[in-house]
Amino acid sequence: MKKIFVVGLGPGELSQTTGRALDALRESQVIAGYTVYVDLIKDQFADKELISTAMKKEADRCNLAVDQAVLGKTVSMVCSGDAGVYGMAGLMYEILHARDLEQDIEIEVIPGITAACSGAAVLGAPLIHDFTVISLSDLLTPWELIEKRLECAAVGDFAICLYNPSSVKRHDYLQKACDILLKHRAAENVAGYVQNIGREGEVGVVMDLKTLRDTKVDMFTTVFIGNSQTKNFHGKMVTPRGYREVQEKVDE
Amino acid sequence: MKKIFVVGLGPGELSQTTGRALDALRESQVIAGYTVYVDLIKDQFADKELISTAMKKEADRCNLAVDQAVLGKTVSMVCSGDAGVYGMAGLMYEILHARDLEQDIEIEVIPGITAACSGAAVLGAPLIHDFTVISLSDLLTPWELIEKRLECAAVGDFAICLYNPSSVKRHDYLQKACDILLKHRAAENVAGYVQNIGREGEVGVVMDLKTLRDTKVDMFTTVFIGNSQTKNFHGKMVTPRGYREVQEKVDE
Repeated sequence: MKKIFVVGLGPGELSQTTGRALDALRESQVIAGYTVYVDLIKDQFADKELISTAMKKEADRCNLAVDQAVLGKTVSMVCSGDAGVYGMAGLMYEILHARDLEQDIEIEVIPGITAACSGAAVLGAPLIHDFTVISLSDLLTPWELIEKRLECAAVGDFAICLYNPSSVKRHDYLQKACDILLKHRAAENVAGYVQNIGREGEVGVVMDLKTLRDTKVDMFTTVFIGNSQTKNFHGKMVTPRGYREVQEKVDE
Repeated sequence: MKKIFVVGLGPGELSQTTGRALDALRESQVIAGYTVYVDLIKDQFADKELISTAMKKEADRCNLAVDQAVLGKTVSMVCSGDAGVYGMAGLMYEILHARDLEQDIEIEVIPGITAACSGAAVLGAPLIHDFTVISLSDLLTPWELIEKRLECAAVGDFAICLYNPSSVKRHDYLQKACDILLKHRAAENVAGYVQNIGREGEVGVVMDLKTLRDTKVDMFTTVFIGNSQTKNFHGKMVTPRGYREVQEKVDE
């Protein structure tokens, strides 16, 4: 059966990629992806045919990859982070379905470290307990639904990780999101953000929710809001495993 | 400065571990962890001092690791999946704080592939859009809060990933959780589960929410419930990137 790997590279450098993901790239004749990610790996996989397309051309990219698989070539579609979290795995299945090729081509999704996990590691341990991941991009999702999810995440006292917190067109979305959260959470609720995870210029900052509201972040930023129990230990954001006190845990 | 790595191994075999995680293990003199995970890696790291403790002895394990770090040894505390998602990263920070050792010992969290991501890859692409991760274990969290979070996740139309869906004592918790979700979601809402992710006997099954309610799963299972838009494409669970139709995406 013909095969497409959809491969999560993790954040930044290939040291953050799993052996299984690297094996899939080695096995492939064609590597497809967004220009920036293909550039990251092209030196190490110089013998491969490369297909890269610009941002927002995801469907074109999938179709080109499928075209190569139809010809009998093994193809890897690469994504930063995890292929299954705002990644290409879903669209690849959708396009295979739309083209009625599910019986001819097998998709194997190879997971990678998503920004929720890699960013959390930079800040400390904000996502130790139940959490939600929400994208603030309203390109394909109505803003009203994003607001509703923020509201639900706030009421449920989830730790929250926000992807795509800002862009040129959406410069005030993080502020709007924090205003929704602040209806249900204290101004002192621990929060933080990480820029350029796993890349040059990686910076993690821990603050409170009120301060986050008035902070400008860029599109290379992942934002974290703790639950009501999250602590700021000397600049590290630490969510307890549960709702008992630490002393009980130390003594258990 | 003295150093403790808290290392996420990912699911099952070391091919699912990042190069950075393996480098940390190589750099360490001591490797600590739950017996099962230490057994997994001990052959490849036979030159290390090993500290393993049973399940539910997490605080003991952290304290033993800290004791070794105090002696000047570099220590890796290993976890399955990600160190920062129901992992040991949080407790390690808490114990360092409780013992007033934050100025002496640096913690570096090295992320791994958590079951939400590795299980999603087995089922297809259930977590492509906004999602929540909820543990059904009420060992350290009141059941009322777990119920509230399930309710919020259902109302917000999140894709949902459930950790610890069952145990000997909690054999009916998945059923109770599904009953809460079914108050807000259709019986046909796509759902699924994965057993033994990345290990021998890995099985992924896609079904609907009503069927999931009446399914018995074990403690080595991770459960997925799609959002209202999630599709079942020939046994693969696929959540669209947004709330527009696939045709628009294919044409974009």
